[in-house]
Amino acid sequence: MGYELYYWPIQGRGEFARLILEDAGADWVDVCRARGGMAKMQAILDGARPELLPFAPPFLHADNFWLAQSALIASFLGERLGLAPESESQRLVARTIMLTIADLMNEVHDTHHPLSVDKTYEKQRAAAAERATGFRTSRLAKFTDYLERNLERAGTGVLVGNAVSYVDLAAFQIVEGLRYAFPRAFAAHATKLPRLIALHDTIAMRPRIAAYLASERRIPFDETGIFRHYPALDDPAPKPKRKPAKARAKARAASRR
Amino acid sequence: MGYELYYWPIQGRGEFARLILEDAGADWVDVCRARGGMAKMQAILDGARPELLPFAPPFLHADNFWLAQSALIASFLGERLGLAPESESQRLVARTIMLTIADLMNEVHDTHHPLSVDKTYEKQRAAAAERATGFRTSRLAKFTDYLERNLERAGTGVLVGNAVSYVDLAAFQIVEGLRYAFPRAFAAHATKLPRLIALHDTIAMRPRIAAYLASERRIPFDETGIFRHYPALDDPAPKPKRKPAKARAKARAASRR
Repeated sequence: MGYELYYWPIQGRGEFARLILEDAGADWVDVCRARGGMAKMQAILDGARPELLPFAPPFLHADNFWLAQSALIASFLGERLGLAPESESQRLVARTIMLTIADLMNEVHDTHHPLSVDKTYEKQRAAAAERATGFRTSRLAKFTDYLERNLERAGTGVLVGNAVSYVDLAAFQIVEGLRYAFPRAFAAHATKLPRLIALHDTIAMRPRIAAYLASERRIPFDETGIFRHYPALDDPAPKPKRKPAKARAKARAASRR
Repeated sequence: MGYELYYWPIQGRGEFARLILEDAGADWVDVCRARGGMAKMQAILDGARPELLPFAPPFLHADNFWLAQSALIASFLGERLGLAPESESQRLVARTIMLTIADLMNEVHDTHHPLSVDKTYEKQRAAAAERATGFRTSRLAKFTDYLERNLERAGTGVLVGNAVSYVDLAAFQIVEGLRYAFPRAFAAHATKLPRLIALHDTIAMRPRIAAYLASERRIPFDETGIFRHYPALDDPAPKPKRKPAKARAKARAASRR
């Protein structure tokens, strides 16, 4: 039997699992994108499976295992599908990094939902602008520098051990998401993240990942997910520089012709 | 060798680990409460250990293992110290519940820090009041009902399997914390949580937990932790009921004497 992933039809917190399943060439189903999937997911949230009562999607079914929580699902899949370090000590480090990436996802979510998870972004714009400013000026750098420093620590081009693991796929997704949601703020800091950008590019070229990204199985980013692009929450556009007086006079003269 | 727990000298996210270590009677050190511990923790945050570069406390050292993230530390300790289910499927369910409890901790934290993790509560009081209202009226019930329903699902008086595990100790801590931080809001909902309250009371009576709670090793709750009691963030005090007109006249007459 293959893997059943239960998650909304957005990238969101389900995308870590999708990238692992795709990179491993696993037999899997994205339940909510199949006919009747949403109702099936809702039934399990309502208690239809005695094995697990999930708090929220994503959750995963594999053989006789049922589990929820995006970071746990990622570690479980990575360790089963050959995308994790072998040693117990390195597996614990990988799980630690994966959970820290999940924390970053929470903080990205809170940039557009700082006051209430139950109200829309449009109902909390002012607070979102304030929270996003703190994210851009402090937290974005703290989290991405953490990944950069871990790459430096490992010294092998990957985050843990010496082969690509599920945390590297997750780091790829973080770069994709930050570039989508905060294009200016991320670009301004990315010059300090050469190892992370190189890792991102390495992952993007893996044949199964490249095929997945080019397929319609990859759901596009949009403003219903975790990574949302609201220009008001990104760095402001740089003001166009005023031309020197001489150039202004020349432009005025030219416009008169 | 025993266990070294690195965490600030507050309950916070370190308390899940402390409760497990105490209940198991483990040989352990609360590093930051020993002389020179804070400097030792800072050195590791700055990269002194090649095994692990933590994002933030808590982190744990055990034999040749180094790991961070409160939920991962709790699962690791519970599974090593005989406070976890035996089967892999139930271990995954326990890890899922532990991570959901860690999510609740994040939402409790955000009631007093909705706009910025870098600014004090006093600088974000109005936003905190709004976020706390949503927490009290929606999220508190959603999370505690989740625990209650899992107790009902298991049908054994504990959250997973048929013996007390680390997630039950964590659920105990959640009840303690919510009672401290939101005494009115929690009391109003607790009538719907008979199984969770019974579990709390069972855990409190375990001999090593009772001894720990009575000792000075248990750090008191205060307003530097995650569970903070700010009356402005809890339910408002009920207004004293106006006495009926007859009683008021009687009281007036009495006061004239």
